[in-house]
Formats: sequence, C-alpha cells, structure tokens
Amino acid sequence: MKWPITTIGFDADDTLWHNENLFEAHHRKYCDLLSEYHDASTVEKVLYETEMQNLELFGYGIKGFTLSCIETAISLTNGEIKAEEIRRIIEHCRNMLSHPVELFDDVEPVLEQLSSRFRLILVTKGDLRDQERKIAKSGLAPYFDHSEVVSDKTVESYARVLERANVPVDQFVMIGNSLKSDILPVLNLGGHGIHIPYRITWEHERVEKTPHEHDSFYQLESIAQLPDLVDTIVVGSNA
Amino acid sequence: MKWPITTIGFDADDTLWHNENLFEAHHRKYCDLLSEYHDASTVEKVLYETEMQNLELFGYGIKGFTLSCIETAISLTNGEIKAEEIRRIIEHCRNMLSHPVELFDDVEPVLEQLSSRFRLILVTKGDLRDQERKIAKSGLAPYFDHSEVVSDKTVESYARVLERANVPVDQFVMIGNSLKSDILPVLNLGGHGIHIPYRITWEHERVEKTPHEHDSFYQLESIAQLPDLVDTIVVGSNA
Repeated sequence: MKWPITTIGFDADDTLWHNENLFEAHHRKYCDLLSEYHDASTVEKVLYETEMQNLELFGYGIKGFTLSCIETAISLTNGEIKAEEIRRIIEHCRNMLSHPVELFDDVEPVLEQLSSRFRLILVTKGDLRDQERKIAKSGLAPYFDHSEVVSDKTVESYARVLERANVPVDQFVMIGNSLKSDILPVLNLGGHGIHIPYRITWEHERVEKTPHEHDSFYQLESIAQLPDLVDTIVVGSNA
Repeated sequence: MKWPITTIGFDADDTLWHNENLFEAHHRKYCDLLSEYHDASTVEKVLYETEMQNLELFGYGIKGFTLSCIETAISLTNGEIKAEEIRRIIEHCRNMLSHPVELFDDVEPVLEQLSSRFRLILVTKGDLRDQERKIAKSGLAPYFDHSEVVSDKTVESYARVLERANVPVDQFVMIGNSLKSDILPVLNLGGHGIHIPYRITWEHERVEKTPHEHDSFYQLESIAQLPDLVDTIVVGSNA
C-alpha cells in the first residue's frame, strides 16, 4: 500500500545532527568527577532516577539536566562535594549549549532533494532557546516551511502541530531516531513513520517493540537511504 | 484616530497573573542565604551581571535563573558555600516552578467579554514547559484562539507570530506589562499597544521613555479598564 504523502516531518537531535554524543561525553566527565565517591554505574543509576523525578517539572533539555546533575552530586556525596566541582558541572552545561552543531553526512543534499517535491517541517522537543539556536546554527532552516519546538512529543502535541501547519495526518510522514517520540505517536494518530536509529538511545526513549508489521512504518540505517525509500512508497512518485 | 482591531494579543506573566513577585520573594531568600558573605545590594548587583552574561546562552526562565544563582553564590563566597545551601537554591527553583498561578483580579471576566468580539492570542516568552504549565493551570486557555511561547520578544518574533496566526499587523493590539517586550516591538512593526504596568519591573525590561505621544499607544492602570478603552478606540465599536 502506497502512502499519499505531501509533508515530511523531521526530528532534529540525533536525526539531522549529533546530540546524544554530547550527553555521553558529559556523563563520562561527570562519573569521573564523582569517582572518588561512587562507581560509574551507581552514579548513572542515581542520576537517571533524579532526572526522571525532575522531568515533569524541569522538562527536557540541558539546563534541567544540569540541575539534576548538581542535585545528584550533592546527594551522592552527602553534601561533601566542593563548590568548585559544582562550578565545573555548570561549565559543562555552558559547553554543551555552545557546542557547534555537527550535521550527519548526507543531510543537506537529502533535504535539498526532498524539499523540491514535498513540504518539509521540523518538529523538535526540548528547550526552546537551545533548539532555536541549533536550528539557526545548522544552516538547514531554509529547507523547512515550518518548525515547531514542543515540550513533549505525544499524540496530542503532533495533532496540534499538524493542525497549525494545516496538514492532514494521512499525508504526513515523520522521520526520527526515537520510536517513542518520533514514530509511535504519529502512527497512533493515523500518520506514517520512518525510523532511523542513532548509535545511542537514551534509556527514557527506549521502547520494547519495533512496529515492523505496521503498514505505515519503515526503518532505515541512514538518512542517505531516505530519497530512494520515498520514491518507492509514496503515491504518485516515479518509481 | 480609531484602530481597526480584529485580534488582541496578551502577554501572560505580570499581565494576566503574578510572576515577578515570585522572583522578588526568591531574591529575598537568596540575599539572606548569602548575608554572612555580602550585603544584599552587592548580591543583587553580581547576580544581575551573571544573569546578563548568561542570558544569550540560558535564555529567560526559572531554570537558567537558578543556574545563575548557583554560579553567583559560588563566586561571591569564593567557593565557601556549602553544598547544602546550593541544594536549597535548587529547592527554591522547584518551588517557583510548582507555584500555583495567581490570576489578577478581573482577568477572567475581561477575557470572556473580549473573546466574544475579538480573536484573542497569547504571546509569552520564557521556558516552554513552564509557560505551558502556567497556561494550563490558569484555566484561561479556552479564551485564546492561538498561543505562542517565544524565546524572546522582538520585532522579528512578533512578525513570525502574526504570520503564523494569519493576522495583519494593523489589526493587532498587544496588551502587556513590559514596554520593552510587549509594546515597543509591536509599535515598530506597525501594530498597536496597551501598556498595563506591574508593581515591579525587572531591571532588564526597563526602558527610558514611555511612547505617550504615539498614536497607537495607551497606558492603563488595570486590566479591568481594558473593555472600556477598547470600546472607545476600536473602529466599529459602539462607543
């Protein structure tokens, strides 16, 4: 069954550019900082628990993550951590926020090619200013007709985005690295999804089952494969 | 000259509900925390400098403010501040984020009355999740046709909001407590502005001159006066 697509949605972090690798590097430094108190697996476990407790209030993004890192460091050291070490955690935060945007290979030619035939929209979640800064730094904004930063990616938030962008859901396919955030809510809404996994998946984004049997789902290894897949599955395409 | 208004934009923090009073209370506690090291005016001055240095990277909102508070406390105490005191700063952050929304008097009847004759939109700046939470808690969402959280309020960001909401600028009036963020960019764009000052204006939002002579500007003391002013100045109104 071919898909009647007019609009392609792209996630940004870990779909168009590297992001989780910054957190991975930060986690390493953070575990080193606390290594005289606890082993890395304890640090990781307690940090994740703190992040999950704070998620509803702090939301996604580097600033909330940094506050969770500081809180965890204080609790894991029973308040022994030095102010200078906390200052270094904030310095890491600043480095992450000001890090250059590293595009994946092939992103730009793929967007250029697809933007001549489809309306492209960008749907990212997280901190508003940080996401806007990355979109600006990426140089990719001209390929997108519309971009939305949402505080979470749920069935409701996609419904709102599609309503604002005036896109019927059956004409929409979302491309992203997270099954939980980019694919499943869109499939549940009646749209289509193409999953391109990243090397690292944050524990919070993991789901048990990939919806391989779903008619509106595909999985690719790289964004470079996207134009060929689109040629094959979209109604009215030449292939 | 009457204004051809079809759409009324509202700022939220300190226009529909109290916000700056939370920061004021936080500042008092913060100065108390550091009172054994410095007097309150030094603490305020250095905190403000830190906030301004961090603004481009951290943006507006409680989480960035909290990171600036922690950094300032470390620097003002030469690293002597205890981890437990930093934990209390994060606890204040959590209290601010989870604080109930306290509407101003008369907001609800005013919005109800105006929403029957105009399209109302909400334009707030700051942290995406925090603003969304406050909009939800306020119970005011049903009066608004459209709401946008922006990372800054500039001529460009208003132009984008009005384009997305499909509103011609000369048919738009913005209501808010900040001349800098709510009024001047909209006047510069060719729209109209009604300023309703709050008891406290954050130093960063202060401007030198109120544009009293501008044809598209009014100032009120309270939102309760808004329907009468609208009756007087809008084209096609009954007054």
